[in-house]
Amino acid sequence: MTKLIDGKQVAENLKVQIASSVKKLIALGITPGIAVILVGDDPASQIYVRNKQRAAEKLGIDSEVITFPATVSEEKILAKINGLNANPAIDAILVQSPLPDHIDEHHIQSAIAPEKDVDGFHAHNVGALFANSEGYYPMANTPRGIMTLLKEYVPDLTGKNALVIGRSILVGRPMMAMLNNANATVTLAHRHTKNLAQLVATADVIIVAVGKPHFLKMSAAKADAVVIDVGINRLEDGQLVGDVLDDMPDSEQLLTPVPGGVGPMTIATLMQTTIELAQQHSIFE
Amino acid sequence: MTKLIDGKQVAENLKVQIASSVKKLIALGITPGIAVILVGDDPASQIYVRNKQRAAEKLGIDSEVITFPATVSEEKILAKINGLNANPAIDAILVQSPLPDHIDEHHIQSAIAPEKDVDGFHAHNVGALFANSEGYYPMANTPRGIMTLLKEYVPDLTGKNALVIGRSILVGRPMMAMLNNANATVTLAHRHTKNLAQLVATADVIIVAVGKPHFLKMSAAKADAVVIDVGINRLEDGQLVGDVLDDMPDSEQLLTPVPGGVGPMTIATLMQTTIELAQQHSIFE
Repeated sequence: MTKLIDGKQVAENLKVQIASSVKKLIALGITPGIAVILVGDDPASQIYVRNKQRAAEKLGIDSEVITFPATVSEEKILAKINGLNANPAIDAILVQSPLPDHIDEHHIQSAIAPEKDVDGFHAHNVGALFANSEGYYPMANTPRGIMTLLKEYVPDLTGKNALVIGRSILVGRPMMAMLNNANATVTLAHRHTKNLAQLVATADVIIVAVGKPHFLKMSAAKADAVVIDVGINRLEDGQLVGDVLDDMPDSEQLLTPVPGGVGPMTIATLMQTTIELAQQHSIFE
Repeated sequence: MTKLIDGKQVAENLKVQIASSVKKLIALGITPGIAVILVGDDPASQIYVRNKQRAAEKLGIDSEVITFPATVSEEKILAKINGLNANPAIDAILVQSPLPDHIDEHHIQSAIAPEKDVDGFHAHNVGALFANSEGYYPMANTPRGIMTLLKEYVPDLTGKNALVIGRSILVGRPMMAMLNNANATVTLAHRHTKNLAQLVATADVIIVAVGKPHFLKMSAAKADAVVIDVGINRLEDGQLVGDVLDDMPDSEQLLTPVPGGVGPMTIATLMQTTIELAQQHSIFE
């Protein structure tokens, strides 16, 4: 069995820090607040939103969930976002993906004020991340959570060969930027990549975010590889599996489990970003 | 002798297209206009600015150069930029780098309206590029010019291994985004990269932007490698050389010369972006 990276434990440690920061903010008269917009009745999205709300409640963060039917107009969502942008009780705004086809997701995400953009999707914040700008800006929580997790197991990424498989704007692209900013040598692979086996065999750190069960076998990676599995796939028998197949008994490799790896880190990091935004707002008020 | 990529000729072809677009705009009553801000009296910067102004003049683009002494305050430059942002005769604003140490370059670049940001440095435009957003936005002219040049010699980059050496916000980072958006598999290498020789030996396309004479030898690259040399270095004897040493007589490799490769493409692409911004403004006016 490959050694498992304990995402749950690292997430718990992070939440302890967040709870302490929330207490300090409340002592200053500031209760951090997050608003989540949920459109339609996708069961998975409902579960994600409920988990986010529960995490917020446990940490003392105010949360508000705004639900719209799948038939809602773009204008109505935009009007709601404008209201939340102007509402001083709200520090963080999140629109749960996916949105119905008739809604332009890019329009919606761009309407969120950059300083309340808890997912780090606004072009302004994406640009700051890719330019490795100084100062505070929110960034995508899944890759940021992965960076926090990696720090526990690979304290210094300088000069490490990092391979990111999958180039979504949610995970792969910001992941590449964060690893590059941490001085790793990053390769971004995707469906058109021809020499994936060779890239996998030479990578020190591999982030897999392709959404295909058992896409990568641990036996294809280096003997000391650290592998982060971002995938969550449901097999026909109902089993939840990641993108990585652990076929290396007794190896010294490291791997995040699914579930219990990246997932808890994403939620904890979302809360971290929420209180950071509240801290920023308290400074500038 | 490695085969040379003719940047001058590709730039000339591009300028012919630009001149034709300028004529069409002028027929509509729109004269594209670029403003260049030059601070201090760095001789190299003066030459760059003069070359840009000459290129604009030849193409029928209005140009205005605003010079400030090296002692100018940040406020004065910002006030000038605000004026240019509001001036409908100006489609494109460029601040020549480097700026004196007491000026915060990030402040200055961020003050340029995103829709007049001809260098594509504004976080908004950087973010759009890295997210591969739809619609028009200006992007950094050196890497974009390299993409135009590459298209002539490598029409389809899909699945090609591209190695970018150097991760500046001017060249390396946007270069990586553009190559990734063109479906290449991109690795971004830098001073902390440990296995550069191996990366060089397996790359189909190499972009070298490190600013060190003879940093890369063509003999280290694949027999069919395409190498783009972004460096311009002056040796002690006054000779101008790039970052690449061509030590491969009779090879089938391709290389951009210095001068006559990336340089002419950058200026032509700057003009291309200027008229695109003018076209965008004419649509929205």
